[in-house]
Amino acid sequence: MTQAASVTAALLVIGDEILSGRTKDQNIGYVADYLGKIGIDLREVRVVPDVTAEIVAAVNALRARYDYLFTTGGIGPTHDDITAGAVAAALDVEISEDPRAIKLLLERIKPGDLNEARRRMARIPHGARLIENKISAAPGFWIANVIVLAGVPAIMQAMLDEVAPRLKTGARMIAETIPAEGLFEGAYAAALGDLAAANPELSIGSYPAFRDGGFHNEIVVRGKDAAKVAAAAAAISAMVARLAKGRA
Amino acid sequence: MTQAASVTAALLVIGDEILSGRTKDQNIGYVADYLGKIGIDLREVRVVPDVTAEIVAAVNALRARYDYLFTTGGIGPTHDDITAGAVAAALDVEISEDPRAIKLLLERIKPGDLNEARRRMARIPHGARLIENKISAAPGFWIANVIVLAGVPAIMQAMLDEVAPRLKTGARMIAETIPAEGLFEGAYAAALGDLAAANPELSIGSYPAFRDGGFHNEIVVRGKDAAKVAAAAAAISAMVARLAKGRA
Repeated sequence: MTQAASVTAALLVIGDEILSGRTKDQNIGYVADYLGKIGIDLREVRVVPDVTAEIVAAVNALRARYDYLFTTGGIGPTHDDITAGAVAAALDVEISEDPRAIKLLLERIKPGDLNEARRRMARIPHGARLIENKISAAPGFWIANVIVLAGVPAIMQAMLDEVAPRLKTGARMIAETIPAEGLFEGAYAAALGDLAAANPELSIGSYPAFRDGGFHNEIVVRGKDAAKVAAAAAAISAMVARLAKGRA
Repeated sequence: MTQAASVTAALLVIGDEILSGRTKDQNIGYVADYLGKIGIDLREVRVVPDVTAEIVAAVNALRARYDYLFTTGGIGPTHDDITAGAVAAALDVEISEDPRAIKLLLERIKPGDLNEARRRMARIPHGARLIENKISAAPGFWIANVIVLAGVPAIMQAMLDEVAPRLKTGARMIAETIPAEGLFEGAYAAALGDLAAANPELSIGSYPAFRDGGFHNEIVVRGKDAAKVAAAAAAISAMVARLAKGRA
């Protein structure tokens, strides 16, 4: 049995700018890919506004359900950056200016420029470890199973690289994609459903895409047992070839 | 007072392919923009896997809280398309093959090709109205305050155009963006926080972007009262000009 216990995660995206459509989120897809590659299954994503009660409720719902909760956004120096305080409230811990974070800020900010607003970025919930990054002076932090990252994609990515080696991980999902070009989903749905029913430990999905005036479908098999994924992919390829031939 | 009562919405994105990172979601940003432009405030987004219990729980949490719940994904003919059944379960209504939907399917599919799998796309919760679209034969549907759309972006967009004229809408959010190029957030955070505190009915956000080795920040004022938005934007422009001058 090559299947290890799975490690699960949720992602909480914090920010009015995503919900207003002003900023197109780039973090969900990146985090999904990244966690999948290191053996952590992303199971749920939520996007909430810059409202403390909303963040607290989502943090508590998600941290209780998954092995890890990653958050992005809301850790800068402005009034709308309320993530650190909300996470502290959710975990019912104190928050105050952290000397370690002040030290990090002072590596890039002149003492005379370390104003009240910038000091806000050093407010860290008690008991958290800091997450440094190479781009910005302000750290993220990790407390209990909650990992608080920046919203700016380049900074978020640098922070994720920083924490990744310390995350517990499970068996990686292996995925195989079988193109079903030229076939409608309705033509193979029954046979594919039978294959899925026969392989309950695999996730078998059919993904239609519409471009250039036509459908370009793909079937994806995902699972943690390489042999089973390969066997199911071979069966699907044979099915697609058979149906394509019948159609020609 | 130009501010109308607001109309709120949530979006539920259904699909393993988003959570695995295989498919990069394009619907969240589109729906956010679209609803904002017609006067509906998107307040929350969730992404859940193709698991009935997860969809049911999210549908019930979100439809209770917001004026509308839009869902995307999971309405095709394959075994992993379980949205219609999950929505029926969430609303505790029956679901069965709908003659209106069969009629729509037969406009594009030859009777001999209308197999069992394709008939699945005609399973519609009782009491729903259908949402047609110009690209695919399979309809979405609208039941109570839940609006079920396709996951394929082009089809989702066509369905949204179809329902939009029948949605109740509130006052549109008006947004003004003030570039704060060359300034760090920490330089203007205190002054901006004062402005935000003085204008609680406005949403004032500071959005850092990092590219080409530097920060390119923008400040955004959003609200439903055009005069108040304009006044705050003018005050922010003046503040930015003052700080930029002090810096030069």
